[in-house]
Parts: sequence; structure tokens; C-alpha cells
Amino acid sequence: MSHNDLIARRRMLGGAATALGAIGLSGWAQAQTSTPTAPAAAVPPAAKPLPAYAAWKNPAAMVVHSATTIETRRSAFGTGLITPAQQLYIRNNLPAPNASILEQREAWTISLEGVKQPRSMTLAELKTLGLETVATVLQCSGNGRGFFPSKPSGTPWTVGAAGCVLWTGVPLRNVVAALGGLADDAKFITGTGGEKLPEGIDPLSVVVERSVPIKALDDCLLAWDMNGEPLSLAHGGPLRLIVPGYQGVNNIKYIKRLAFGSSESKAKIMAHGYRITPPGAQSGPEQESVWEMNVKSWINGPLPEAGAVKAGLVQLHGVAFGGSKAIARVEVSTDDGKTWHPARLTGPDLGRFAWRQFAVALKLPAGNYQVASRAVDSAGNVQPAERLENAHGYNNNSWRDHAIQLTVA
Amino acid sequence: MSHNDLIARRRMLGGAATALGAIGLSGWAQAQTSTPTAPAAAVPPAAKPLPAYAAWKNPAAMVVHSATTIETRRSAFGTGLITPAQQLYIRNNLPAPNASILEQREAWTISLEGVKQPRSMTLAELKTLGLETVATVLQCSGNGRGFFPSKPSGTPWTVGAAGCVLWTGVPLRNVVAALGGLADDAKFITGTGGEKLPEGIDPLSVVVERSVPIKALDDCLLAWDMNGEPLSLAHGGPLRLIVPGYQGVNNIKYIKRLAFGSSESKAKIMAHGYRITPPGAQSGPEQESVWEMNVKSWINGPLPEAGAVKAGLVQLHGVAFGGSKAIARVEVSTDDGKTWHPARLTGPDLGRFAWRQFAVALKLPAGNYQVASRAVDSAGNVQPAERLENAHGYNNNSWRDHAIQLTVA
Repeated sequence: MSHNDLIARRRMLGGAATALGAIGLSGWAQAQTSTPTAPAAAVPPAAKPLPAYAAWKNPAAMVVHSATTIETRRSAFGTGLITPAQQLYIRNNLPAPNASILEQREAWTISLEGVKQPRSMTLAELKTLGLETVATVLQCSGNGRGFFPSKPSGTPWTVGAAGCVLWTGVPLRNVVAALGGLADDAKFITGTGGEKLPEGIDPLSVVVERSVPIKALDDCLLAWDMNGEPLSLAHGGPLRLIVPGYQGVNNIKYIKRLAFGSSESKAKIMAHGYRITPPGAQSGPEQESVWEMNVKSWINGPLPEAGAVKAGLVQLHGVAFGGSKAIARVEVSTDDGKTWHPARLTGPDLGRFAWRQFAVALKLPAGNYQVASRAVDSAGNVQPAERLENAHGYNNNSWRDHAIQLTVA
Repeated sequence: MSHNDLIARRRMLGGAATALGAIGLSGWAQAQTSTPTAPAAAVPPAAKPLPAYAAWKNPAAMVVHSATTIETRRSAFGTGLITPAQQLYIRNNLPAPNASILEQREAWTISLEGVKQPRSMTLAELKTLGLETVATVLQCSGNGRGFFPSKPSGTPWTVGAAGCVLWTGVPLRNVVAALGGLADDAKFITGTGGEKLPEGIDPLSVVVERSVPIKALDDCLLAWDMNGEPLSLAHGGPLRLIVPGYQGVNNIKYIKRLAFGSSESKAKIMAHGYRITPPGAQSGPEQESVWEMNVKSWINGPLPEAGAVKAGLVQLHGVAFGGSKAIARVEVSTDDGKTWHPARLTGPDLGRFAWRQFAVALKLPAGNYQVASRAVDSAGNVQPAERLENAHGYNNNSWRDHAIQLTVA
């Protein structure tokens, strides 16, 4: 049992039946229907306490939007290449299962379907089939929603529904090979979460079940460790499907079933949720799903909340990622994109699914600056100036939205 | 102020004057003279509480040898590529300075000597000169001392006086360039720690001052962040000299002075301490200093304390590093080195100063096995079977000493 789990457990023993009850399904309902109350990207909401299952997080690093939506403060990113668990964001589509599912991690079972020899496997058996560690950016597709002037419903994340994380587990292709290979010409990989579903309503209306294109198979991992520790309940332990390069919702927590097949899941979260819906339109399966992440970057320092910066050489730094494509280069502008200065990529390269750190030293006389960064991926995709407007505020990678206002004195 | 600092501060306000006083210089005296009481690599010493300045560490992950010598449990490494601050070892040669030195980090000054324009610089000024992140293995040169049957005096570390850490700071070469370059044909870089020295004794007998060869200049960093957080007091904040590839003692904490010159420091810790001294001989400057780390690896799982492993395919995994040389390959043996099986290097490569993770799946029938790993670096250096015997138990990279006994049932 990890340190995090121990702390969580300790706190839960001290009155968590209440806390868990209080979460109930309110998180789910709230996330689906609430209107953001905070103005876009302005003052963070009034401080709420961390929920019991995430009580081990660093409260100073987090903005608690609700019990199931918890954001990392931009200032907490610092120069971090790996986001520590203590400050990684949380976005749960259903309340987390009872912590008792972590008591016998090795006995957790997953049903594997759409392979030549379909059957259930325990986590203990999965561990015999391979061991790999992959660094990925985990990001909620609604990250940056807080910058939409249209104020789409949903959590008004700014930059903090993202982190760069190391996952350890077994490559999914190893598991498929151990089960005789794919049964048919599968087009999709569908993962189903192990959350407890509310009774009395159609399971398809609430189950966390997502499909991703079969081309992701070679990169997928069934992961049991995060940042070298057994995966916490808050982040999907004991077992999570990792789809490197894909938006967070596709990385199914508490994964209980994994199926290869010819069609996408009919679950509401797949067929209607997480679609790029034109403003004013109804969401539906004909619209683009939030799958691969687009090229994106932002500045993490210096930030305006630290006060004015001294005139002269200023080291601007941040992070950049390209979904499943490596970052080719990053540029920084202090004049709303009229001129761009090449930044250096700094620090170790953790692979194409991870973020890169970048830095550039600019000589800034006293004044007020709008500081923005713009990333280009290995396929030549350029981070755009403007967001793609859509009804639910997904996939915002506008460099202008992510710019900061810096005072140099 | 980081989360760690906040926790430490909170605990210190609750009665730490006593705790700090209790540390006093006893840690220093003890580390210099004590005889290890635990048998080599057997039962860890009885649990001692974490000292106040490190109270934010994860107690379950640590073995507290003394207030200034705190080891990571082998079982805590897991599949970790980056060692979280909460479980990174501590080895202080003097008690940590008062935490008040972190109150104004930017005002910390370092004296730079042996350059064309010698002067002091603040941390704020250093930050304008560059920004880089480097992953290094930080390891105490006495790591593995606990395996010496000769029981050298000093802390009986097994594998846990090591970790892989991300450091962010300014490349030292940038600082030298900003000061007009080196003044002379410097042969050594000498760093001096900012610890408070006890009064009434020759400062040279206690000051933490180490010299490394000038060839390290291109790799050195003056670091203010560790794993993306402001450097904690326990690990040398606000500013630490990082000499990638060199044993821990050369990475000077609270660095106050950095000088380029033609000779090594005359401080006792340099001239007599940390020398590879033949058994029974007196230590002295003519002997090899503990500088570059040698090639080394060990198994981190499965470990015997987790109980018997199920017969069949077993995934063995661990870490390997080569000091300043990249790891070329790792092999694993279950029969005391009679046969070796090639392991896969897994996970991201953080550069030649970091450790690599490795894994290999072996089919093991029921029985008892001695499981060892052996690393080879990019220069062809092979991790040896036997340790190099020396009076103080430094530089142990024997694969046999680091082997584990595994029961398969």
C-alpha cells in the first residue's frame, strides 16, 4: 500500500462514510449540468476542502472545483517535468469506487473480449506478461474551457487539468498476443470502468465506457503504477487503461472490461458526451470525439501572481506537448504574436507522449507584456492563435487564450 | 514556499527548537565514529522518528539511521524512475542550517572566485543566466557499505542511499561566461557549503568543502529546484551545486562559495575524508577521492519481503546507472552468475547521468534463487562480482553483494 493510500485510509477511517456519502452522485450531476460561476480565467473559486479520497493531495497546489473535479494551480507546475501525484489534477466522471478495491490489488480482474481466446485475467497474471514504463501527458479534454468567453457548461479549467505522468504496466499488445491475437478486424478498443453505477437508471446513461481507434493498440498500456507507486484510487487504481496521446477521458480508471470490436460503445459518454459539437447544436455520434490531443503549450513562469519581474534578462519557461507527436519547436512572443522568439527545449526528452520543458531568456525593459508560447509538433502542426469554438469547450489549444500578462519594473 | 517546506515549518513551530538542538553536532560525530550495529544487509535498525527538518518525508519509505543519515527502503523504489522527494535519502555531513535561510531564497548569495571578474551573485541574478533541467543519480559514496563483511565504520547503507532526481538551475558554464571566463588554468572546481560551523575548532576540520576535476565544468549545474519544486532545506536549498555523475558528497548543499583553482581543498572532508583507503591504512590526499560513480545496478522487485513468488513467468526489474556514462545493457542471473539473461531497458531514457529501469521475464520453477543484475556502461565497464575492499566502505558496486534471495513456490 502506497503512502498516499495510507494517508487516504487514515483520513477515511476518521469519518469518511459521511464524506463519501456526501459525494454521492452529486459530482456527476454537477459536472454535467452546472454553469461555471467563476469568470473565465479570473479569480479561482473560493477554496473548498479536498474530498476524502484525495485528501492526500497538496491543498496549496490545488483548486477544488468539486469533489470530482480538482485542478492543479498554474503556479504549482514550476519547472516540473513529472507532475507529482500530490498535485496532479482529478476529473472523475463518477464517484471513485470504495477504497476496499485496493485491498487485494493482485486479485483485480479484467475481462478481455474480442480476442481469439477471450477470458478474464487477474492483475497478478497481467504482471507476468510484461513490464514497461511510459511517460504521457494526462489532460482533461476540457482543459482550457475556462478561457472560452461563451462559458460552456462544465468545469472552467484553465491550464491545470493536465500533468505529465510516468505509467508502469503491461503493453496491451502483449496481452492480446497472450490471448491468441485479435478475433476479427477490430476497429475500436473499448474500455469499461469499474465504478459502481447508480441503480434504477439505464447503465448506458452513466457507465464510463469509451472507445478509441484500433491504431492506438500498439501504444496502450494496462498500468498499475503511477510515478513508481502503486496506482492510487483517485487516479484509477488498481488498474487503468492508458492510451498515450489521447485526452484523459479515454484513459479508463478501475478498468474491468476491455473489448475489441467493430463499433464504438453506445454508452452516453461515448455516443453523446465528449464530442466536438458546433455551438448551439446537439451532441451526437456523428461529431468528432475527443481522442488525440492537439499541439499545445503554455508559460509556467514567471507568473503575474508572483509580482512584477525585474527589468533586464527574464527567463520565461513552460511546457509543450503534441499529443502523440513529438514537439519540434516552441516560440515565445511578448507582443501578441507580432514577433516570435525561438525557445530552447530544456531537460530530458521523455518521449513523444510526454511534455517538453522550454525556456527562453528575453531582455525586457520595464513595461506590461502579454507573454504567449506557440508550439509546433513533428508533423508541422502549429498551435493556433484562436480556439476552435465548440459547445462544450473541448480541445482548447489557443496560444492567445493561454497567454499571461506580465509586469516588468 | 513548497508543500514540503510548509509541512516542515508547521512541525517545527510545534517544538522543533528542541529537535534541532538535539541534532546538534551529534550526527556529524556519530557518522564519523560509530560502528554499525546491524548485521550487513539484514534486519534494518529499530525505527527512529524522522528529524524535524525532514519530517515531511514518507516514514514508511525510510530507514532513519540518525538525524543526518536517512535511507530509502529498497521496497520503496518500486518501478520509480524519478525518486520523489518524500522518499529520497538524506546524508548530511553537518546539521542542516536554520530553515530561515529559505525565507528569502532569491537573496541567497554565492561568491564566485577564480574567474576573470570574481564577485558575489544572488540567486535572483543566477536565474537570469540560464535555465536547464538535468536528471542525475544522487548517491552517497557509502551506499552498499552495509554489505561489507569488514563492517567499516559509518552508516551501513544497503541500496537506499541513492535516488534519481531532476534538478533545475543554471549551467555553471553560463555563470563562468558571465564573469569573463576562468582566470587561470584551473584544475579543480571547489564548492563550499553554507552550514553553520561549530565554534572553537579549526573550520577546515569540519567545513563541507569538496573539489572536483575541472573536466566536470561543462556538466555542472547550480540548482534551485528539485523534481520541479523549490529545493528543500533537507536537500540543500536554496542553492546546491550539482556535479552530474559524481558521488553525492561532491554535490555541495547551501553552496556559498565556488572557486576555480589549481589545487584541491585542504578541508579534512576532502584531504582525508572520502578516500579509497586500503584496509588498515590511514586516509590521505594521495589516495583516490570518491568522484565519478562506477557502473552499478540492483533488483528492486520482486523482493523477498513480499513473500514467495508464484512459479512460472516472473518479471524481475531494477535500476542501473553508469555515473557519467550511459548504460549499454543489463543482464540478470538466478544462479550466482553462472548464466546471464539479457534484460530489456524499459521506460524513458533521461540521459547518461540518470538511471535506467530494466526488466526481464524469466520462467522460474519452484525453488530458491539468488537473483542478481549486472550492468555494462557505454565504455564497456562491467559491474564486477566483488567489491573493492577499502577501509571506509566506499564505491561498492559488487553485483553479488546486491543480489536478493527469492523463493518461488
